[in-house]
Amino acid sequence: MIKAGIVGGTGYTGVELLRILSQHPEVKLTAITSRKEAGMPVADLFSSLRGHVDLAFSDTSTYDLTQCDVVFYATPHGVAMADAPKLTAAGVRIIDLAADFRLQDVATFEKWYKLPHTCPDLLKVAAYGLVELNRDALKKARIVGNPGCYPTTMQLGFYPLLKAGVVDASHLIADCKSGVSGAGRKAEMGLLLTEAGDNFKAYSVPGHRHTPETLAQLQRMTSDKVGLLFAAHLVPMIRGMHSTLYARLKDATISTDALQSLFVNAYKDEPFIDVMPFGSHPETRSTRASNMLRIALHRPDVDGKPGDTVIVLVVQDNLVKGAAGQAVQCMNLMFGLPEITGLMHVPVLP
Amino acid sequence: MIKAGIVGGTGYTGVELLRILSQHPEVKLTAITSRKEAGMPVADLFSSLRGHVDLAFSDTSTYDLTQCDVVFYATPHGVAMADAPKLTAAGVRIIDLAADFRLQDVATFEKWYKLPHTCPDLLKVAAYGLVELNRDALKKARIVGNPGCYPTTMQLGFYPLLKAGVVDASHLIADCKSGVSGAGRKAEMGLLLTEAGDNFKAYSVPGHRHTPETLAQLQRMTSDKVGLLFAAHLVPMIRGMHSTLYARLKDATISTDALQSLFVNAYKDEPFIDVMPFGSHPETRSTRASNMLRIALHRPDVDGKPGDTVIVLVVQDNLVKGAAGQAVQCMNLMFGLPEITGLMHVPVLP
Amino acid sequence: MIKAGIVGGTGYTGVELLRILSQHPEVKLTAITSRKEAGMPVADLFSSLRGHVDLAFSDTSTYDLTQCDVVFYATPHGVAMADAPKLTAAGVRIIDLAADFRLQDVATFEKWYKLPHTCPDLLKVAAYGLVELNRDALKKARIVGNPGCYPTTMQLGFYPLLKAGVVDASHLIADCKSGVSGAGRKAEMGLLLTEAGDNFKAYSVPGHRHTPETLAQLQRMTSDKVGLLFAAHLVPMIRGMHSTLYARLKDATISTDALQSLFVNAYKDEPFIDVMPFGSHPETRSTRASNMLRIALHRPDVDGKPGDTVIVLVVQDNLVKGAAGQAVQCMNLMFGLPEITGLMHVPVLP
Amino acid sequence: MIKAGIVGGTGYTGVELLRILSQHPEVKLTAITSRKEAGMPVADLFSSLRGHVDLAFSDTSTYDLTQCDVVFYATPHGVAMADAPKLTAAGVRIIDLAADFRLQDVATFEKWYKLPHTCPDLLKVAAYGLVELNRDALKKARIVGNPGCYPTTMQLGFYPLLKAGVVDASHLIADCKSGVSGAGRKAEMGLLLTEAGDNFKAYSVPGHRHTPETLAQLQRMTSDKVGLLFAAHLVPMIRGMHSTLYARLKDATISTDALQSLFVNAYKDEPFIDVMPFGSHPETRSTRASNMLRIALHRPDVDGKPGDTVIVLVVQDNLVKGAAGQAVQCMNLMFGLPEITGLMHVPVLP
Repeated sequence: MIKAGIVGGTGYTGVELLRILSQHPEVKLTAITSRKEAGMPVADLFSSLRGHVDLAFSDTSTYDLTQCDVVFYATPHGVAMADAPKLTAAGVRIIDLAADFRLQDVATFEKWYKLPHTCPDLLKVAAYGLVELNRDALKKARIVGNPGCYPTTMQLGFYPLLKAGVVDASHLIADCKSGVSGAGRKAEMGLLLTEAGDNFKAYSVPGHRHTPETLAQLQRMTSDKVGLLFAAHLVPMIRGMHSTLYARLKDATISTDALQSLFVNAYKDEPFIDVMPFGSHPETRSTRASNMLRIALHRPDVDGKPGDTVIVLVVQDNLVKGAAGQAVQCMNLMFGLPEITGLMHVPVLP
Repeated sequence: MIKAGIVGGTGYTGVELLRILSQHPEVKLTAITSRKEAGMPVADLFSSLRGHVDLAFSDTSTYDLTQCDVVFYATPHGVAMADAPKLTAAGVRIIDLAADFRLQDVATFEKWYKLPHTCPDLLKVAAYGLVELNRDALKKARIVGNPGCYPTTMQLGFYPLLKAGVVDASHLIADCKSGVSGAGRKAEMGLLLTEAGDNFKAYSVPGHRHTPETLAQLQRMTSDKVGLLFAAHLVPMIRGMHSTLYARLKDATISTDALQSLFVNAYKDEPFIDVMPFGSHPETRSTRASNMLRIALHRPDVDGKPGDTVIVLVVQDNLVKGAAGQAVQCMNLMFGLPEITGLMHVPVLP
Repeated sequence: MIKAGIVGGTGYTGVELLRILSQHPEVKLTAITSRKEAGMPVADLFSSLRGHVDLAFSDTSTYDLTQCDVVFYATPHGVAMADAPKLTAAGVRIIDLAADFRLQDVATFEKWYKLPHTCPDLLKVAAYGLVELNRDALKKARIVGNPGCYPTTMQLGFYPLLKAGVVDASHLIADCKSGVSGAGRKAEMGLLLTEAGDNFKAYSVPGHRHTPETLAQLQRMTSDKVGLLFAAHLVPMIRGMHSTLYARLKDATISTDALQSLFVNAYKDEPFIDVMPFGSHPETRSTRASNMLRIALHRPDVDGKPGDTVIVLVVQDNLVKGAAGQAVQCMNLMFGLPEITGLMHVPVLP
Repeated sequence: MIKAGIVGGTGYTGVELLRILSQHPEVKLTAITSRKEAGMPVADLFSSLRGHVDLAFSDTSTYDLTQCDVVFYATPHGVAMADAPKLTAAGVRIIDLAADFRLQDVATFEKWYKLPHTCPDLLKVAAYGLVELNRDALKKARIVGNPGCYPTTMQLGFYPLLKAGVVDASHLIADCKSGVSGAGRKAEMGLLLTEAGDNFKAYSVPGHRHTPETLAQLQRMTSDKVGLLFAAHLVPMIRGMHSTLYARLKDATISTDALQSLFVNAYKDEPFIDVMPFGSHPETRSTRASNMLRIALHRPDVDGKPGDTVIVLVVQDNLVKGAAGQAVQCMNLMFGLPEITGLMHVPVLP
C-alpha cells in the first residue's frame, strides 16, 4: 500500500483527493494537514466523508510527512516548494496541485505568481503532470507539477493539430468556460450563489496565469512560434469545464477525415481521453466526477465547402481530470500501478 | 455473476441503475430494453456511459428476459406486473422501481394508480423493498416492490419514534422537498430549467400517491392509528431529497438523550443510515450519488424548556437510496451477497 | 419630492432599495452611505445601476443625514438605533430594515441580538412595519421596524385563522424555505454557489431570531396562548421565499369554504396580497422582483373527509415584500402617498 | 393609446411582451391569441401577471386582428407571413419576433428555415429591427423583422470595428453563450433542469440559423467580404446572453484608445447601449429584465505589447434587448414615441 499524505485538505481539490484516494485499492491515507482546522475530524468538515475517512486534520508543524510515500499538495502556490527539499531528500514523492513546479522557467513563474521560487534546483527532478503527453518523464520524476485545469484542456485539444503541423500555431484561440469550483473553496463575494448564480461573465481576459504554462507546453509540440489568446469565463455550475478551441488550417485542402484521424490516432490507447464522433457536442456533465476528458472536432462550412478553421470542443470535470484525478493518475504512473487504478468511476448523470 | 436485465433504461432510475450495476463486482448486465430506443447503443443516449456500458437497447418483444437472474423495472407503473407471471414462473427475480408491488391492498393500488392490478396473487410472493425494515421478507421474496423516494425518508425518519410509541401517531407531519430528477426524465413544461430553476413551490398537497404506501408501512410499526399529513415540494436542484418530519411527544418529560438513543440504537448496525449528532443540519449533497441516508434529530425549546415536538431531518439522494441504490441493496440481499456490495461510493461533493 | 437617504447601500436590501427608489416618482435619492466604499460610485459596485443611479457612496461620518426626509437603514442590527435619537430629533423619519425596532420588548431584543438597546424610549414612537396589519400605527410613526422576511409570511399566513379563532394557536408549525439572498451579501463559505448550489438543508432549527418577533406579533392577533415551531431551510435559488404553514382546526366541522372566505375577506382590499383559488400551489417566481405576496389554502382529506389540519402556502420575493418593497410601502403610507406608488412592478418570469 | 395585439402569447417572448406592454404608458393590450389556450385567462397560465393582465387568450380564427394598430408575432417561423398581407392591407403594423422578415434574400430564408416564403413582395415594406443600426428604415416600415438574440450582440459588437475598417472582416469569430430561455418555452428533454442544469455544452456548431441573418447584416457595414464563425453554447441559467467576439486588426499599430473611441463614438447617444470602460468584464445579470446591452473591449498583450486581436464582450438579456424589449423599441420608433418609452426598467440584481 502506498502511504499518502495530503497537505491542505480543506479545499475542493483536497476533498476530491480524499474521495478518490479513500476508494483507491492501493493507497492508505496516512495524514491530512490543515493549519487552520488541526484537530478537527475531516468528516466534520465534509459530511460526505462520514464513514469513509476517519482521519482528523493534523498540523503540518507536528506531523512528520517524511513517513509518507507520496504527499499531495492541495494548497495555495508556494507551499509545496517550501517542503520540497526536505521531502525529496527523504525519498518522498511530491505531487503539487498548485503551480510551483509547472513552469521550468523561474522568471516566468516569479512574474506571474509574484513569489520568489525557493528551490529552482529541484525543477530538474520535477515533471509536468499531463500524463498523456509526458509519460516517460513522469515515470522517473520525484516531483510532479500537476497541470492547471484550463491548460489540460487546451493542450490535449490542440496537441494533435500542432504535432501534425496542420494549423497556424501563431493565432490559436481558446474560449474556455469553467464551473465555479475552479476558483476554489474560499469565501469570496464573487463566488456566492447570489452573485455567480443565473449569471455569466468573462474574467481575467487581459491575462490569466494559466497562459504562460499553456504556452510553454504548446511550444514543446511544434517548432512554429506559438501564439495563444485565452479567454476564461465563469459558468453558473458547480463542476465542469468546456473549452472551445479555434485554429486555422495552414492548408484548407486537408480533408476532414484526415483531421479527425489525427485525434483518433493520437489518443486511441488513452483510457481517459474519449475522441467522440466528428461533429459531436460533448457536454460537461458527461464527465462529472470522473477522470474522463472528451473531445469533439468541428469544421464549419464556408460558402458550402469545409472551411479553413477547425473548432475543437473539450470537456472535463475540472476537479478530476483537471486536478485531483490527474494527480492520482500521475501517482499511479510513478508507483508502477496500472494508470486506471482507482480512477474508473462512472460519471454521475444527471 | 448475477445476470441482470433492466426494462426501461432510458429514465433517471434507469441510468442510475446502469451506473451502479456496471461497476458492481457480482453483476453482469445482459439486457437493457426500451421499445422507443431499440437498437440504439445505451452510450449514445447517455454519453456518461461511453466506455462503461457496451449494450444497445433491445426491444422487450424480442429479448427473452427469462435468461436473466433478476430484472429491474425502471418503468411507468403497470409494466412490471404485466411481465411478472411469466418471469416468476421462470424463476427470475423481479425488482420493480414503480408502484406495482408496493401496496398489498389491491383496492388502494387501483384507486391511486387508476390501473387494474393484473396479478394480485403474486403480491404474496412480493416484499416491500425497504431493506432496513423488512430484511427477513426480502431474503425470500421473488418480487420486490421498491419503495418510493419520499416514503423511504418518511418511514426511516418516523420508525424509531413509532416503534417506541413515544409520539402521537395520529398527527404526523412530513414536509418533504425533492430535486427535480424525482419527477423522472420526461419532457414536461414544468420541469424545464426555465420553469423550475430559481423557483420553489409545493405540489400535490391535496393528495400524493406516496401517501397510501407510507401510511400502510407506518401502520405496521405501531398499534396506534396512524395519521399522516404529507406536503411535497420541488427544489431547483437536480438530485437530493430533504424531509422535515414533525411529531408530537405523548409525554414531554422524556429526555432528549433518550430520543436520540432511539435513533442511534435502531440504526447502529446499518451501513446506509447515518444518525448524526443531535441538532445537526444534514445537507442533501452529503449523500449525492451515494446510497447513504442521513438523519438528525431536533427538539426546539418552548419557554426555555425542551418542547413537546420532535423534528426529524432526513436527507438522501432520491435516485440512489430513494430508487436505484435501494433496488441494488435489495438485490444483494436476495442473492445472498453482503448488502454493501457495489454500493460504497463516496458521495460527490461539491 | 421626498428626500431619501440609504445607510448601508452595499447589501442586497440596499441595492433593492436603490432599484425601487430610483424609479419611484415621488422620491429623490440624496445619499447612500457606506463606510467601506465611501467615494465609489454606486454604479461601479452594482453595474445594473449604471445610468440609473448617479450617486457615489458617502461616508456616514461626513454626510449630514438630517437633510433627508427619510432614511432607510439597510445595515446590520444596531446601526439604526445609534442614529435614531439625532435623526428623530431633527424630524427625519427612519425605516430600519434590521431588527432594532421590531421588538417592543427590550429584554427579548437583547437576548436574541446580543446587543444592548441604546434608545428604548424611542420604541414608543416606533411602529412595526407590516402594513396590512398595522396601518394606523404606521401612519403616525416616526420610526419603522421593518419586518423580517420570514415573519412577514408567517403573520400574513396565520392572521385570518388566528383572528377568527378557528385553529389551535398553541401548536402552529411554519416550515419555511428561503433563497440564498436572504442571508445577505457577505462572503461566507456556506453561501458559495459551490456549497449552496444543487443542495438543500435546514438551518437554525433549534432557534431562529425571527421567532420572537413573529411570536410577539402573532400573539397580538389572539387571546389564546400562541406556540410556534419554525424551521428555516436554504433553497438553491437567488430570490424567493415559500412558507408552508400548518395549523390544526379547533373544530373540524367548519367548512372549507368558510376557511377560504376568512382569507378572501381579510385581504380583499390589499393591493399586495393575492389570495389564490383554494388548492392552488403558488410558486415563488410568480412574485420575483415584485412586492406581491401570494397565499393559497389547502386542507387535505383524511379518510375521505376534509381533515382537521389547514395548510397555508405563502410566497413572496424575500427582498421585496420581505424587505425593501415593504419598506417603501411603509414610506408611502407615512408620507401620505397612495401605498402602491412606485411599487407596481410586474413580476419577472421566467 | 396604441392598440396592440400579440399572436402566440404562451412562450417566453410572449410573456415578456406582456410584462413590458402591460406597463407601457402608451399601449393598450387588446388581444392575445393562442390556438391551444383559447379561452384561458392569461394570468392562469402566467401567475406573475395576476392583477396586471386581465385578458384571456383568444382564438386567431375568431379575433379580428385588423382592429389593432400593431400586432406582435411571438410565434414559430411562418405564422407572421401568413397574416401579413391581410394586416398590412388593413394598415396594421406587424412586428415579427420570428424570422419571416429578417432576411431580404428569399432563397436564403427558404434554405435555412425549410419553408417557402409566402409573401416575398412584402419584404420591401419590411425593415430589420435592430434600431441602433437601422433607424431610418424602421421609421417608415410597415413590417419589422425583429432580430434574433445572438445576431443583436454580434452586430452591435462588430459594428464599430467593421465600419472603421480596422479588422480583417473575413475571419470574425463569435463564441456566444445563452441562457436556456433562448430556446423558448417548449417541453423538450434537453431543456429540463435535470439535463441543462449544472451542465455546459455547445450546440449547432456546424451551422446555426442565426448565421445567415448576421452575415447579411454585417456585410452591410463593410465592402470587405465578411466571414463569420459562430459557435453557440447553452448556459445553465434562465436569462442572459454573453458573446465573446474575436477580430484581428489589419494594422496592429492602431492604439487601444483609438479602438475604444470607435465604440464610444458609435454609441454615445444610444440609450440602450452601454460602452463600459476598456478592460471591463460585463456580466449578464447586469442587464437582467432590462433592455440594456453592455459592451466592453479587450486587447490582450502579446510579448508585452498590445496584440493584434481585439476581443469584444457583449451582454444582454436575451428576452429583452434580444427579443421583446427590442420589439417594443421598434414599436416606439414606428409610432413616433420617444424610443425609451416604457423601457427604462432598472435591471434586477441579484
